[in-house]
Amino acid sequence: MKKIIKQRSRKTGLPPGSLVHIGEQTGEPVRISLVDYDETSISERETDDIAECFPHSDQPGVRWLDMEGIHRPELLKTLGECYGIHPLTLEDILNTDQRPKLEDFDDYLFVVLKMLSLQPDGSLTAEQVSFVLGPSFLISFQEGFKGDLFDSIRRRLRENRGKLRKSGSDFLLYSLMDAIVDYYFVILEDLAERIEELEEEVIAGPSRKTVVKIQHLKRETIFLRKSVWPLREVLGRLERRESPLVRGETVIYLRDVYDHCIQIIETVETFRDLLSEILDIYLSAIGNRTNEVMKVLTIIATIFMPLTFIAGVYGMNFRYMPELEWHWGYPAVLLLMLLVSLGMGIFFRRKRWL
Amino acid sequence: MKKIIKQRSRKTGLPPGSLVHIGEQTGEPVRISLVDYDETSISERETDDIAECFPHSDQPGVRWLDMEGIHRPELLKTLGECYGIHPLTLEDILNTDQRPKLEDFDDYLFVVLKMLSLQPDGSLTAEQVSFVLGPSFLISFQEGFKGDLFDSIRRRLRENRGKLRKSGSDFLLYSLMDAIVDYYFVILEDLAERIEELEEEVIAGPSRKTVVKIQHLKRETIFLRKSVWPLREVLGRLERRESPLVRGETVIYLRDVYDHCIQIIETVETFRDLLSEILDIYLSAIGNRTNEVMKVLTIIATIFMPLTFIAGVYGMNFRYMPELEWHWGYPAVLLLMLLVSLGMGIFFRRKRWL
Amino acid sequence: MKKIIKQRSRKTGLPPGSLVHIGEQTGEPVRISLVDYDETSISERETDDIAECFPHSDQPGVRWLDMEGIHRPELLKTLGECYGIHPLTLEDILNTDQRPKLEDFDDYLFVVLKMLSLQPDGSLTAEQVSFVLGPSFLISFQEGFKGDLFDSIRRRLRENRGKLRKSGSDFLLYSLMDAIVDYYFVILEDLAERIEELEEEVIAGPSRKTVVKIQHLKRETIFLRKSVWPLREVLGRLERRESPLVRGETVIYLRDVYDHCIQIIETVETFRDLLSEILDIYLSAIGNRTNEVMKVLTIIATIFMPLTFIAGVYGMNFRYMPELEWHWGYPAVLLLMLLVSLGMGIFFRRKRWL
Amino acid sequence: MKKIIKQRSRKTGLPPGSLVHIGEQTGEPVRISLVDYDETSISERETDDIAECFPHSDQPGVRWLDMEGIHRPELLKTLGECYGIHPLTLEDILNTDQRPKLEDFDDYLFVVLKMLSLQPDGSLTAEQVSFVLGPSFLISFQEGFKGDLFDSIRRRLRENRGKLRKSGSDFLLYSLMDAIVDYYFVILEDLAERIEELEEEVIAGPSRKTVVKIQHLKRETIFLRKSVWPLREVLGRLERRESPLVRGETVIYLRDVYDHCIQIIETVETFRDLLSEILDIYLSAIGNRTNEVMKVLTIIATIFMPLTFIAGVYGMNFRYMPELEWHWGYPAVLLLMLLVSLGMGIFFRRKRWL
Amino acid sequence: MKKIIKQRSRKTGLPPGSLVHIGEQTGEPVRISLVDYDETSISERETDDIAECFPHSDQPGVRWLDMEGIHRPELLKTLGECYGIHPLTLEDILNTDQRPKLEDFDDYLFVVLKMLSLQPDGSLTAEQVSFVLGPSFLISFQEGFKGDLFDSIRRRLRENRGKLRKSGSDFLLYSLMDAIVDYYFVILEDLAERIEELEEEVIAGPSRKTVVKIQHLKRETIFLRKSVWPLREVLGRLERRESPLVRGETVIYLRDVYDHCIQIIETVETFRDLLSEILDIYLSAIGNRTNEVMKVLTIIATIFMPLTFIAGVYGMNFRYMPELEWHWGYPAVLLLMLLVSLGMGIFFRRKRWL
Repeated sequence: MKKIIKQRSRKTGLPPGSLVHIGEQTGEPVRISLVDYDETSISERETDDIAECFPHSDQPGVRWLDMEGIHRPELLKTLGECYGIHPLTLEDILNTDQRPKLEDFDDYLFVVLKMLSLQPDGSLTAEQVSFVLGPSFLISFQEGFKGDLFDSIRRRLRENRGKLRKSGSDFLLYSLMDAIVDYYFVILEDLAERIEELEEEVIAGPSRKTVVKIQHLKRETIFLRKSVWPLREVLGRLERRESPLVRGETVIYLRDVYDHCIQIIETVETFRDLLSEILDIYLSAIGNRTNEVMKVLTIIATIFMPLTFIAGVYGMNFRYMPELEWHWGYPAVLLLMLLVSLGMGIFFRRKRWL
Repeated sequence: MKKIIKQRSRKTGLPPGSLVHIGEQTGEPVRISLVDYDETSISERETDDIAECFPHSDQPGVRWLDMEGIHRPELLKTLGECYGIHPLTLEDILNTDQRPKLEDFDDYLFVVLKMLSLQPDGSLTAEQVSFVLGPSFLISFQEGFKGDLFDSIRRRLRENRGKLRKSGSDFLLYSLMDAIVDYYFVILEDLAERIEELEEEVIAGPSRKTVVKIQHLKRETIFLRKSVWPLREVLGRLERRESPLVRGETVIYLRDVYDHCIQIIETVETFRDLLSEILDIYLSAIGNRTNEVMKVLTIIATIFMPLTFIAGVYGMNFRYMPELEWHWGYPAVLLLMLLVSLGMGIFFRRKRWL
Repeated sequence: MKKIIKQRSRKTGLPPGSLVHIGEQTGEPVRISLVDYDETSISERETDDIAECFPHSDQPGVRWLDMEGIHRPELLKTLGECYGIHPLTLEDILNTDQRPKLEDFDDYLFVVLKMLSLQPDGSLTAEQVSFVLGPSFLISFQEGFKGDLFDSIRRRLRENRGKLRKSGSDFLLYSLMDAIVDYYFVILEDLAERIEELEEEVIAGPSRKTVVKIQHLKRETIFLRKSVWPLREVLGRLERRESPLVRGETVIYLRDVYDHCIQIIETVETFRDLLSEILDIYLSAIGNRTNEVMKVLTIIATIFMPLTFIAGVYGMNFRYMPELEWHWGYPAVLLLMLLVSLGMGIFFRRKRWL
Repeated sequence: MKKIIKQRSRKTGLPPGSLVHIGEQTGEPVRISLVDYDETSISERETDDIAECFPHSDQPGVRWLDMEGIHRPELLKTLGECYGIHPLTLEDILNTDQRPKLEDFDDYLFVVLKMLSLQPDGSLTAEQVSFVLGPSFLISFQEGFKGDLFDSIRRRLRENRGKLRKSGSDFLLYSLMDAIVDYYFVILEDLAERIEELEEEVIAGPSRKTVVKIQHLKRETIFLRKSVWPLREVLGRLERRESPLVRGETVIYLRDVYDHCIQIIETVETFRDLLSEILDIYLSAIGNRTNEVMKVLTIIATIFMPLTFIAGVYGMNFRYMPELEWHWGYPAVLLLMLLVSLGMGIFFRRKRWL
Repeated sequence: MKKIIKQRSRKTGLPPGSLVHIGEQTGEPVRISLVDYDETSISERETDDIAECFPHSDQPGVRWLDMEGIHRPELLKTLGECYGIHPLTLEDILNTDQRPKLEDFDDYLFVVLKMLSLQPDGSLTAEQVSFVLGPSFLISFQEGFKGDLFDSIRRRLRENRGKLRKSGSDFLLYSLMDAIVDYYFVILEDLAERIEELEEEVIAGPSRKTVVKIQHLKRETIFLRKSVWPLREVLGRLERRESPLVRGETVIYLRDVYDHCIQIIETVETFRDLLSEILDIYLSAIGNRTNEVMKVLTIIATIFMPLTFIAGVYGMNFRYMPELEWHWGYPAVLLLMLLVSLGMGIFFRRKRWL
């Protein structure tokens, strides 16, 4: 449930813009990585001194400031003041249960995304990534250390591959968003595999836990959906170039991520359809099974009840029961029982129960 | 049911603008609290004399008039006359089963909200809060005394924290609405907890009352939804600044509440999905259980019916039954019975019922 | 079913504008009531002579012509001619299975509404009310005599209460529509009560008729919905002042009825949700019950089948059955039976069936 | 199934505009009827010579050319050439599984409708009717001979009733469409009757075939819906006067057909709701029945199993069973059995099963 | 599952525009076919040398370059460079799990479609077809060799049938799209046939595999739907002539394909409805069957349990049982048993179980 709703209640009653970190507290230190680059040069630094991060207005090129760990509001506040970030933006960065959104503050664009990751036990967790895009800088905020995705971008910067170094801060934002969205496909593949396994299980013979598994996967898709649907809107608005901070040559790339996003949404919807189908198969399997159990019971009862009755009749102690005295009485009764059984068998075969 | 529909029928046939209080009648007196403030000074008064509440046109700053208890229509009428409030607005304030809405009367904005609260027995109740926002005043009307939420705003006013004292009446309206919306998160957390408990109950082993509990929670979410959906529209229209009474610098804050509202709506929708899932698990659990009961019955019947039949056969009183005379007849029959039971056991194991 | 579809087929093949009354034929006479009023004077008349109803162009003030009973097409035709009403409008007035609609014929507005009423047996019936709104007149057409609702308006006119006498024909239209919409709340309250009763019935213990009752109520809500949804559109268009016949000061009142209409729609939707829930509870109650019946059967069978078997064994007539000769054989067997029963009892308790 | 999809595959691979008739081949000849009329005169002819149908540009008034039978593409081609009809239009006339649509080819409007008819066995069939509306002519194409509907229009033309002769070709188109739409009401009445019968059947006691009947009716409504939904769009566009071929005075009549169309759609949707309800009642009836069967079984088993057990006990052959020797043993046991039965009876009455 | 999601994860981390083929690797060589044509002349060539495909700017007429097999990214890259195709377009051509889309790159239009084909085992597979439409050229990319559909267009080009040779590259694009969409009807017919078979199977008597078959067909319709829905948007945008590359005279033809597309969508939706219905019939058939099994069991048990009990009573060994001594005791008991059976029979007939 924690995935769906986080403890916000302790913020109730505080004035707007109060910087309170909402989310899991990790003991890890805050790590700030700073990259300044233009087409010809690049400098990388890692620091935990916030003073080094102040903007140098005379410097050309693009600055990327990546902050990993947001549990120290005072750092954020200092940073916010020197880059001119609105207190409400800072508050949103700290409230890690935001839904993905895009806000235009004229001086900068504020983008919130969800970075999903697969836990070893197969469940999904989401981490909030926030971006502040200025004309010549990009600040990214992550809850914890999730180096892999962003490292590939860092490598591309260093090696000067592709258009990255030649373009502005908006292309850097695009590249980071693209990396995040691309990772969603990995998650989709994992989900697809588990749905397929589940389907085979249901057709082979479902157990009691199957329905719980179906619901688990359903919940993962709901969770995924909640992250992706608003993302679509964010990307749509970026692509429509509502802000001058997004340059014309980047739009064509944003359209590409937008297409990926639509594709993810459609796949998630297909997953939902598939899971409903699997539930249907499961329920009809249970119905079929009850039916079969009933049939066995009915066949047994229908055969043995008349037989037992016949045996009971000849177990009565009446003084005058002529059949009991007959020499062939016993075999005759056994024959009668056989005939009754056969009659029942024929009846069941006609009903197609055997 | 009273939550869903209130007794309006006694208003049928009255001309529009008739001031009839619709809602529960409480015996409590009407309490009016008056706060006049600007950046430098603040004066607070509590009164029950309506004359003290008349506007002083020469006074600068913002006046906040908070009326707790609306069951005396004549007070409302007087107040309405001196602040120029339209009779239909007054009627709406008294009809406490309004849906949240925003109406623009040029001179003032009329906003109706629902303040939800958790009852000790876990059910939700809604109270109507109405706001009349003028250029330099805000009048708030509450059904009963719900001091907690608004007290935090009063404290902020007194202590001159945040932007509140420096801004106009629209910012005060925003702050009050923000307080109300923030409290919705508390309710969501409570609901989330109860849904989680219910889910564990269903998986552990549902009882007869489970379905009633599920429906109870479903109803709470329907109720919550009815309060939040129209709120979204209200906030959306405020944020779009359709009225000059809402200043530019407040819009960014209204957007923030709007985002919270969207988040609440999405969580409520997720709750609905979860409750449907829980109902599905519950229903499939019942199906499974019937199945299991059937299996036990079938196993018992299938084993003992043939045995009883065999015993019945040898309980018959035919004169000529050779087996009865055999020395080992009895043990042989017991052995036969054992073999029949084993055969059935093997059959059930193959069917995977054991 | 008659509520859903009326006999229109006999109109097939007639040219447009043919005046054929579609609806139930009542033997009652047509009653025309005529009210001419302005701020200072009012004159009321009741007549069945259509000639008295001709418009006097020189007369100031507003004329309200209320026609009860529309089964005499020739009267309608005469009236239509002198007030300049289009044949298609007259046709629509006679076709009493119209859906609520608003049509703008430049010279006049044509409004069709449904007036709902509760029958003694609890079912709903709808009657069509049509309005023709001209600059200084309003003609209302009703299927039968439903005096109560409109009488309150007549009284208000006579007593010169509210704004009614001071305003134009559009305000009269508003007042009549408001009276009709207000009556919907009475119906909602009745429905709410019946839903509540049904809910209690379902939880206490549903009978066979419960599902029929649920469907009955469902149908009433469908019926209500069909009347209210298009009404919303009619009111919305009136409020948007698409026609100059609706004056500015009336709009604020129309907005009020519109709000009521939305509220009715939302309540109806909630009713639908509640009825679905009740059906769910009902179905799961049936499932639970079957389950319980099964359990009782299984418990009885599982206890008595082994016992009967044991008794059967010692009822066999083998010559050599040593147990039969034992002195304590009988009590020992009784003890054995007791132990078997206890064992079963423990088994059931573990399975939580007892 | 043929109703849902027709053999189009043999058209695969042909260039656009290829005239291949798609639909059932009837042996009937093609019948062309020609009506030229204006306010004062009318001439009717029936012909199978296509040359007579060529337009006489000097003739005033309106020409209506009605072609019954479209299985001779070469006739269509000739006709198309002299009236300037686009090959794609001709292709669409021949493809009789078109959905209703309106196409504006500047010189003419092309309208496709579905004419529904009730088969003697109660199923619906649809026939495509296409119209080509020019400034002074209207060409209608029907698959087979369906004289009744159009004959009423012909009679009106001859008898010069209504506005028909005084108006242009667009009014003729309206009249024909109105006739077709009016006939839908006949079908709705038939469906309503069958749904009502079905409902009574389900409440009285459903048989195995009931579910098949429900699905049959569901399919008819789906079929009807597929014909009516796009019709609404066609009429909406005509009414909005997108083409100059539709004159102002006709619009008011088109609005009338549009209203009828909306009403049909709503009724069809209500039918769908009703059929779902009936299915629900049916399913819950089956559930109830299983329940009842179970109860009878359980009551019988629960009463007789203990009795049979008691009888079995006293049928045991132990040498030392004191009860057997008692004089009143037999009546005592009978009494015991009676008491056990009564006890069970009380138990069932408490459970409300009796 | 592979149909729903393809292995994209190995693209994660690559910069945008990286050319990696996503899809099944076939060993077949890449085949390029080149057609240059205008109204008077046509030249066809087949080549695997990419150099031959370079555009000759001086040549009039239209060039159609059809590339079958896209697993050699380097060929694509060369081609892309000489025709000025954006790297993102090339990437999309290689990612064969794109959804159908239309992108306008000013110089050219990029269209992605899905070409569906029926596998021998009845399942559907989709292959991506991409088009790059320039002012005087059209390049088509296919995953594998699917000659049939496009061959009919080639033949039409050669034989100069229809408008194809007289029109531009946009008409060629239309013709190819029309061929693809037309083939969808073949698939619909196949599906319709299988649904019909399934329906008959369900009504005749469903087996365990029926539900799996239903789900299989459901999945095919989901699959089909995913291909057709976005196609509708593509065609809609083409028809609206958003790009100057689409000429006015082609629009009327595009509207025709668009209509076909809508028709396919509606048929697919109808299929979904039909499959839901079939599932409903199936489920109610299972319910009915359980019911019937229960009835047989109950009838047998209810008849034989009392009889066996009576036999048991007279099998008791009490010394003093007067009936046992009666001469007519045995026949009397048999008569009693007969009466009990008849009574039960009458009871069942009343309950309508026999």
